[in-house]
Amino acid sequence: MKAKPIILLTNDDSVKAPGLRFLIDCVRPFGKVVVVAPDRPQSGTAHAVTVNHPLRLELLCKEKDYEEYSCNGTPADCVKLAFKVVLKKRADFLFSGINHGSNSSINIIYSGTMAAVFEGALAGVSSAGFSLADYRLTADFKPSAVYIKKIIAEVIKNGLPRGVCLNVNIPAIPEKKIKGIKVCRQAEGTWQEDFDARTDPQGRRYYWMTGVFIKTGHGSDTDESALENGYISVVPVQFDFTANKALEPISNWFS
Amino acid sequence: MKAKPIILLTNDDSVKAPGLRFLIDCVRPFGKVVVVAPDRPQSGTAHAVTVNHPLRLELLCKEKDYEEYSCNGTPADCVKLAFKVVLKKRADFLFSGINHGSNSSINIIYSGTMAAVFEGALAGVSSAGFSLADYRLTADFKPSAVYIKKIIAEVIKNGLPRGVCLNVNIPAIPEKKIKGIKVCRQAEGTWQEDFDARTDPQGRRYYWMTGVFIKTGHGSDTDESALENGYISVVPVQFDFTANKALEPISNWFS
Repeated sequence: MKAKPIILLTNDDSVKAPGLRFLIDCVRPFGKVVVVAPDRPQSGTAHAVTVNHPLRLELLCKEKDYEEYSCNGTPADCVKLAFKVVLKKRADFLFSGINHGSNSSINIIYSGTMAAVFEGALAGVSSAGFSLADYRLTADFKPSAVYIKKIIAEVIKNGLPRGVCLNVNIPAIPEKKIKGIKVCRQAEGTWQEDFDARTDPQGRRYYWMTGVFIKTGHGSDTDESALENGYISVVPVQFDFTANKALEPISNWFS
Repeated sequence: MKAKPIILLTNDDSVKAPGLRFLIDCVRPFGKVVVVAPDRPQSGTAHAVTVNHPLRLELLCKEKDYEEYSCNGTPADCVKLAFKVVLKKRADFLFSGINHGSNSSINIIYSGTMAAVFEGALAGVSSAGFSLADYRLTADFKPSAVYIKKIIAEVIKNGLPRGVCLNVNIPAIPEKKIKGIKVCRQAEGTWQEDFDARTDPQGRRYYWMTGVFIKTGHGSDTDESALENGYISVVPVQFDFTANKALEPISNWFS
C-alpha cells in the first residue's frame, strides 16, 4: 500500500482562524496532515520573512496522522520552518487558507496566504491557496466544501507543473448559487487608498490606511469576472515576474 | 518651459541608508525630488502594508525642489502615503533603492525595495528599483553612478509600458570592470534555508533563520548570468502573475 501523502497546511489569519479549522477538516481525509500556522493574525504581511528576531514553534496537538504547531513568524516563515525543522523534509503538498477575504486580482501581491503558497512552489511542492470573499470571522465556509475537496483531489492526483501554484477564490454565496469552477487569469485591478488623518492627544498627526479595490480591466476570462458570475476562480500563478513582452523594447534603450 | 518632473524616491533600508543618500544625489539633477522612506530598516518586509496600526510622517528637510520625509511604515506604505498625503497626486516617476544587497532572481519576492516599485507601477507611474550586490553599510555605490544616471535618463525620456517596472541589479565590482547594461529575464533560483536552533535562558527552544541562495537555472539571458559576467542587469517585471501556459492543462481538470 502506498504511503499517505504528507500535507502541510498554513494560513495568515492565525492558527485559531475558522477558515483554517475548516480547511483542516477538508484535507484530513487525504493524508497525514501537519499544520504550522502563525500564532496571531498576519493579514497584509505579504511575503515578509523574519531575519531580525528569533522564531519559536509551539506544539499544540499531536495524534495519529495529525500534528499542529503555532509559530511567531509570518506565513512564509511557517513554511520554511515546517520543511526544515518540523518535517525535516519537504511536504508532498501544501494548502493555505481558507483566507477570510478575497485574494483575487492584485490582492495576491499583499497576501500572506499566497506567500505561503509561493514558498511551497519554490521548494518544488504542489501548492494551492484558498480564499473566501468574506472578511468576517463568522464567514460561512460550508458552501464551498465540495469544490475545495474537488480541487484538493485534483492537485493530489495530477500534481502541478514546476513553478506553478494555484490561487483559488470563492464567492461568498450560498452553495446552490455556486455555478462551478473556472480556471482563469488574474484580473487587472488596484487599490485606491485613502488615509484617515487624525490628531493624537499630544497634538501629533497620524493616519489610518483605508481603501477600495478598483477593477481596471474587464475581461470575461478573469478571476474577478468568474467570482461576479458565481464561479470559484482558479488562477495558475508563477513567480517568474519577467515581463517578456517588454524585453525587446527596453533592450533597445541600451543598444 | 516644461515643468520639472516630480520624482518620488524611497527604499527599504531606511531614510538614513547610504544607498538612498547616493540615489538622491543621482536623481536630483532630473527634477523635483520628494523622498518618503521608512524611519528604520525594513529588509525582507516584501509587500507588507500597515492596516492595524496608525502611520506617521515626519518632515526632515524642505528646500528648493527637494523634500524629505520619514514614515513609520513599510516601503509600500511610504509610496501610498506619498501619493495621497504628501504630493496629493501621483509622482511622474518613482525610483527605489539603492538597496544594500541583491534583489536579482527570486529575491524580488522578498524585497521591500521592489514592493515600492510595484506600488508605483500599480498607480501608473514609471518606476524602477536599484540594488547593489553588497549587503554592507559601507558598500561602494560610486562605480555604478554613470549607469544609474543612464537608466534614470532613459526611464524619464521613454516612460515604461503600462504594468511594467524595472528591477535593476548592480554587481559589486570596480567601475572599470563593469561591462555595461544587460536587459534580461529573472533567473530561476531559490533560498535554501537553515535554522540555527538555540535554547534561551528559560530553557525554551528558538530558531534564527539563515540560508544560502541557490541558482536552479543556468540561462545566459538571466539577471544572475549578467551579474556574474560584470554587467548591470535590468529585468522588466510585471505584476500579472498568471502562469498563462498552465491555463489550458489545469482547465482540463475541471471540464
